[in-house]
Amino acid sequence: MARILTGIQATGVPHLGNILGAIEPAINLANDPKNESLLFIANLHTLTSIKEPEVIRENTYAVAAAWLALGLNTERTIFYRQSDIPEVTEMTWYLNCFTPFPMLANAHSFKDKSDRLSDVNAGLFDYPVLMACDILMYDADIVPVGKDQKQHLEMTRDIAGSINHNLGKETLKQPEASFDENVMIVPGIDGEKMSKSYGNTINLFQTDKKLRKNVMKIVTDTTPLEKPKNPDTCNVFKIYKLVASDEEVATMRKNYEAGGYGYGHAKQELYEKLRDRYSEPRERFQHLMDNKHEIDQELEKGAKRAREIGRPVLSRLRKELGY
Amino acid sequence: MARILTGIQATGVPHLGNILGAIEPAINLANDPKNESLLFIANLHTLTSIKEPEVIRENTYAVAAAWLALGLNTERTIFYRQSDIPEVTEMTWYLNCFTPFPMLANAHSFKDKSDRLSDVNAGLFDYPVLMACDILMYDADIVPVGKDQKQHLEMTRDIAGSINHNLGKETLKQPEASFDENVMIVPGIDGEKMSKSYGNTINLFQTDKKLRKNVMKIVTDTTPLEKPKNPDTCNVFKIYKLVASDEEVATMRKNYEAGGYGYGHAKQELYEKLRDRYSEPRERFQHLMDNKHEIDQELEKGAKRAREIGRPVLSRLRKELGY
Repeated sequence: MARILTGIQATGVPHLGNILGAIEPAINLANDPKNESLLFIANLHTLTSIKEPEVIRENTYAVAAAWLALGLNTERTIFYRQSDIPEVTEMTWYLNCFTPFPMLANAHSFKDKSDRLSDVNAGLFDYPVLMACDILMYDADIVPVGKDQKQHLEMTRDIAGSINHNLGKETLKQPEASFDENVMIVPGIDGEKMSKSYGNTINLFQTDKKLRKNVMKIVTDTTPLEKPKNPDTCNVFKIYKLVASDEEVATMRKNYEAGGYGYGHAKQELYEKLRDRYSEPRERFQHLMDNKHEIDQELEKGAKRAREIGRPVLSRLRKELGY
Repeated sequence: MARILTGIQATGVPHLGNILGAIEPAINLANDPKNESLLFIANLHTLTSIKEPEVIRENTYAVAAAWLALGLNTERTIFYRQSDIPEVTEMTWYLNCFTPFPMLANAHSFKDKSDRLSDVNAGLFDYPVLMACDILMYDADIVPVGKDQKQHLEMTRDIAGSINHNLGKETLKQPEASFDENVMIVPGIDGEKMSKSYGNTINLFQTDKKLRKNVMKIVTDTTPLEKPKNPDTCNVFKIYKLVASDEEVATMRKNYEAGGYGYGHAKQELYEKLRDRYSEPRERFQHLMDNKHEIDQELEKGAKRAREIGRPVLSRLRKELGY
């Protein structure tokens, strides 16, 4: 049984692109009885870029509520908030002392961010070490990462290797990265990749009325209602394909090609599809956001279990380092 | 009542220079009922330069044993080991995110060390932030520092100021530095400033026989026994002056100037002076090093009290940052 560890950025209410591209596949992986999964919200990372307390708090709750609402099984998966595990920051100090300064200073992500951002802080610089602890403290076997995180995972392995070499034994387990080659690209309302930074998202977790309005803003061409249309170049159809059944998709394709079927009709169908497919998660999300103590309860349960795994690893490390 | 916080490097068994120049004055300050003192052994800092577990552990015990043996009152002073306060590393993460990367990269001490050392690690780089937490977590009023630590204390004030500014309130207390202008310079056995790195120390905490041998190695000139000698240019006399009474010093001066009094005599008197003046601390030091659980007990008692002060400060900070 492999122990899989996944970190989630606390960037706010997940949109449809996050849900289809990342959350649903991760939940399937986590709920698979072949795996033992740890899944955490990286809300300490958030502070490297966001400094508003209310935003950090709300973003963390929104992310947690979304995963819970979308069906994460917290009996099976250890689901927790990074900031509930102070041991991970403690371990960061020890690992800092085995992390070459130039390795962090030359990391792609740090160089890229320090070129772009005005707030270049020591947290941004040191984050790869905190991330290494997030992984190494749980003896994780596998860490599913995107290409942008590849270098960070290599650093994690390097830091663990350096400590093991110094101590002359395998005190820390070097994890393997797993790259999902088939990440679903979800188009946004303008046809570009759906992304918060492009302002082109569809947010499921809002009222029916707002969701409908959101869907109605999908950009389409000016082909008149009566004319036949090409579904394969249409943003509405591209999104519909990702959420509807094969049969439903075939029907919409026929409608497009027959003519007399407007983009407004297609948008209405997409809206109804999203509304119905996600009716339960949307209701559950709202319930959780109105009852945050329930989210806290779940996350605290997870933190307790995570600490049970992590503490002995940290103790082992401290002891062998002479502390 | 001012709260004074002092960090002690865990560099091994303190020598006579440390004792006369730093430890005894600090103990007097700490035992003064006008102050509330926290005094900690910065053994997490040690890992930035020393990687041998046994050395780190033994150095920490030796430093603790010396302070206890020399009369630190642990009822009055909160005396603890940095590594027993995991909260300080947790706080470091939060403060990292408010510490400009260039401020740390341009710090004198980091630049100096990264030029000299082969092991330039992220701990060395980030140490000023850990040090800031060592201070800020206890709402310290006054931090006695040497000139080399002046910039680090300014950084501590800057980081606290930046967080307070961000939060719009005085969440962290900005401490004042205190510089002792009259630090006693203790000459080593070669007449240079006594320092471990010069290999010219006198180590009180060894057997009588070894201590005597150590004193006998003090460098003197070749004036023959019968001839009068100038006490003011003699290394033995310079050290004797720091540990003997005015009367004893006057007597030795007379002996030097009269002639018929050799350096061997003076060294024997210095040895006996050290042996007698420090007989109780030397015995107590040995007892503690043979009974390390007694040192642990003292330090754990201190850590408990330190955490009682530090935890509410960290909680206050976490809460206001949105955690």
